[in-house]
Amino acid sequence: MKKEEQKEKHELGITAEKDEFSDWFTQLIQKAELIEYTNVSGCYVLRPRCYFIWEQIQKCFDEKIKKDGVKNVYFPLLIPESFLLKEKEHVEGFSPEVAWITQTGDTKLPEKLAVRPTSESIMYPSYSKWIRSWRDLPLRLNQWCNVVRWEFKNPVPLIRSREFLWQEGHTVFSTREEAEKEAEKIQQFYADVYKEMYAVPVIKGIKTDKEKFAGAERTLTTEVFLPSGKCAQAGTAHNLGQNFSKAFNIQFKDKDEKSKYPWQNSWGLSTRSIGIAIMMHSDNKGLVLSPKVSDVQVMIVPIFKTDDEKKQILKEAEKIKENLKKQDVRIEIDLRETSPGFKFNDLELKGVPLRLELGPKDLKEKQVFSCRRDTGKKEPIKIIDLEKKVPKVLEDIHSNLYKKAEDYLRSNVSQVKTMPELIEAIKNKKLAKAEWCSDKDCEDWVKTKTEGAKIICTIDEKAKGKCIYCDKKSDQVVYIAKSY
Amino acid sequence: MKKEEQKEKHELGITAEKDEFSDWFTQLIQKAELIEYTNVSGCYVLRPRCYFIWEQIQKCFDEKIKKDGVKNVYFPLLIPESFLLKEKEHVEGFSPEVAWITQTGDTKLPEKLAVRPTSESIMYPSYSKWIRSWRDLPLRLNQWCNVVRWEFKNPVPLIRSREFLWQEGHTVFSTREEAEKEAEKIQQFYADVYKEMYAVPVIKGIKTDKEKFAGAERTLTTEVFLPSGKCAQAGTAHNLGQNFSKAFNIQFKDKDEKSKYPWQNSWGLSTRSIGIAIMMHSDNKGLVLSPKVSDVQVMIVPIFKTDDEKKQILKEAEKIKENLKKQDVRIEIDLRETSPGFKFNDLELKGVPLRLELGPKDLKEKQVFSCRRDTGKKEPIKIIDLEKKVPKVLEDIHSNLYKKAEDYLRSNVSQVKTMPELIEAIKNKKLAKAEWCSDKDCEDWVKTKTEGAKIICTIDEKAKGKCIYCDKKSDQVVYIAKSY
Repeated sequence: MKKEEQKEKHELGITAEKDEFSDWFTQLIQKAELIEYTNVSGCYVLRPRCYFIWEQIQKCFDEKIKKDGVKNVYFPLLIPESFLLKEKEHVEGFSPEVAWITQTGDTKLPEKLAVRPTSESIMYPSYSKWIRSWRDLPLRLNQWCNVVRWEFKNPVPLIRSREFLWQEGHTVFSTREEAEKEAEKIQQFYADVYKEMYAVPVIKGIKTDKEKFAGAERTLTTEVFLPSGKCAQAGTAHNLGQNFSKAFNIQFKDKDEKSKYPWQNSWGLSTRSIGIAIMMHSDNKGLVLSPKVSDVQVMIVPIFKTDDEKKQILKEAEKIKENLKKQDVRIEIDLRETSPGFKFNDLELKGVPLRLELGPKDLKEKQVFSCRRDTGKKEPIKIIDLEKKVPKVLEDIHSNLYKKAEDYLRSNVSQVKTMPELIEAIKNKKLAKAEWCSDKDCEDWVKTKTEGAKIICTIDEKAKGKCIYCDKKSDQVVYIAKSY
Repeated sequence: MKKEEQKEKHELGITAEKDEFSDWFTQLIQKAELIEYTNVSGCYVLRPRCYFIWEQIQKCFDEKIKKDGVKNVYFPLLIPESFLLKEKEHVEGFSPEVAWITQTGDTKLPEKLAVRPTSESIMYPSYSKWIRSWRDLPLRLNQWCNVVRWEFKNPVPLIRSREFLWQEGHTVFSTREEAEKEAEKIQQFYADVYKEMYAVPVIKGIKTDKEKFAGAERTLTTEVFLPSGKCAQAGTAHNLGQNFSKAFNIQFKDKDEKSKYPWQNSWGLSTRSIGIAIMMHSDNKGLVLSPKVSDVQVMIVPIFKTDDEKKQILKEAEKIKENLKKQDVRIEIDLRETSPGFKFNDLELKGVPLRLELGPKDLKEKQVFSCRRDTGKKEPIKIIDLEKKVPKVLEDIHSNLYKKAEDYLRSNVSQVKTMPELIEAIKNKKLAKAEWCSDKDCEDWVKTKTEGAKIICTIDEKAKGKCIYCDKKSDQVVYIAKSY
């Protein structure tokens, strides 16, 4: 690399290594033009390349739930304080983070309005009007919207921002069994979205009582173990039991003519998922993403010296582009007036999954020179084979990313039986697998002794030993790690 | 109609006539299960049947602008007060309606945050970072989001609500000409969306300086003249000139190496459009909507007495449903345990465009009995012809609604030359067409003398006479009406 190019790369590329995790991440998302900071701390701009990812996730998940019978709605952003106060645990969980509207124009409001941190308390008063009989159930509604949670922890774009976009499903059933079955189904939908769209494997589990959603009976979670050695909650489905139906007086007349409180779920997947996917796959050169969510999947880089070459090369590039568009490939030609070397670095930084170089020599050989972002592997592809091969390469990039992430997860699980083993595992950025007696004190001690790691979730495996902290018989298998 | 049915209809149907407009409208949208009121005045729930409409509009418009090169983004909901203050006219226009966040949790914020009433002032600080050179232009971004405007006028669901959903496009160009051309294109897109999706004809015009967007040089508008005799602003595109680029210091280095302020547009279409379409087509029986935006386009009503009949009828209904689904018809079977008469009234109330009745006699004749919501016209259709005929009938309903609305508009324009003629026209709920000298005083007098009618817009016709108010030579042809 020439000195000038090196300098260019230094300024434009990422100067932090992936193991200086947070610095690497914040540089990456800005330089890859995904995120822009604003003057409001904790609130960020989702730039077009980033919002595009969200649109793909919306399409995928929206299709799944609509096919399953869920309907979309929109409830107001603003929640009267008195509504928020109705479910005790819920308000305790959320009120420290609520952004309050106290004034409109110059006029003080008679009652403060919360900007929704989540919509249970604005939706369920309507539910109590709509639900009268077992015939009205199940009621399964979802909304795509923004929410605000004014957290005090250090904000990280996408991962922990004070405003984020999400979907929130709110469903009501006659029986506990139906509700539980649905929550499990949604948890699986989330796992599927991560696998199909982000090429990210998740862990499915259940949150401990301490970590569950404020007001829920049980939170089913999907968690991702990231290369930083920390877990991130990826999507959750909450069994609310009858807590909210009692608090909001939702009752239905059942087939036996008796009035009953129904069983509810709420479930959400947010733009945090974008941050998780970026953290999982990206590297020191910049963004790596599945082609499924990349706005540009293939970029043709034309290489030429003379005007005559330029004309020929661009003509061929245009032809390739049109043909691949017909295969539903999102493809563009990089027409910027900069050197090919600059473009290669920049396209790597921005995470374009496949680059096709087309120069005079290639043209003569009726080929392009392809370069995969995920592996860096370079090979010539005959132009005549592009329509067949490119979609396959894109599929293969997705599978390869998933496989790598799965291998990473598998090889970083560390089975621990004692506290020293646990502390060591956490220090080594492992995902510790342990057993636990279900006692909240032991859970607290785990956090204290590991300096911040927590029980991420319990998993569906039979416990057979002793609790990681105390000597009592364990009844749960759990994952323990630090988390975002 | 039997007495009982009459009573049933009285309770369930709409009790106000369409000419008691506002009462009719608020009953209609609630009874047709489009809107639910909440405890926050001016904020409403968009129920599934209503949100479905918005999803169709989003799909249609999103496709148009993406094809035209616009990209979607998401900017923060919350705007620091100091940002909002940057463009003088803009802040004067919006600050009386702003909902202010002054507190998060128990902590008072150092600077108030506005819930976006529109996003110019949060987007353009980023634009000033992103735009450096003519190569960065045009920049054409759009976002789909919610906005809050705490208006003091009496709120009307969908038409004037304190929170609404919309898209806001924000674009930047090197030259005034490009910006003006785009604004005209967007105005046409809005007209097309209304025509293609809602079957509603719009008037294209330009707002007077008094009525234009706060901070704009010029507002291109689409307006709909409604059966209530009032106009509603349907979608607007604003030429912002260089007002905002100067206020937010957006500059670019042009091809001639000189620093220049670029030219900007902003443009928006909101959920108000749903209210406009409902007001335009609906009648005393309830909702009438184009099949293009109806969640259920066709409802099969099975009619039977014996269990044996039921079995046969439902089997055939299911077959019809599956066949029509293959033609992309949104079709359902009304399986509710109520009388056919109840269902007919209810389906009319809810605006299902086409009803197919299927009874034992029809089954024998291998036909269904169809009833169109728009005309009430009933006719048998052979079951074998359904796949061919139903999509055509749905198309015809759309065209018929558009034609009726166009006829209504055409036949209600009243050419006026004097103030008494104008006052008479407004009293008779006409859309007055007049000439105007462009003087703001005359505009104010028109409003005063007509008790609230205003110049809706100027239109692209040559003025040749005198101003409607003064004796001076006119230079504009305008529409005058009351408005929402």
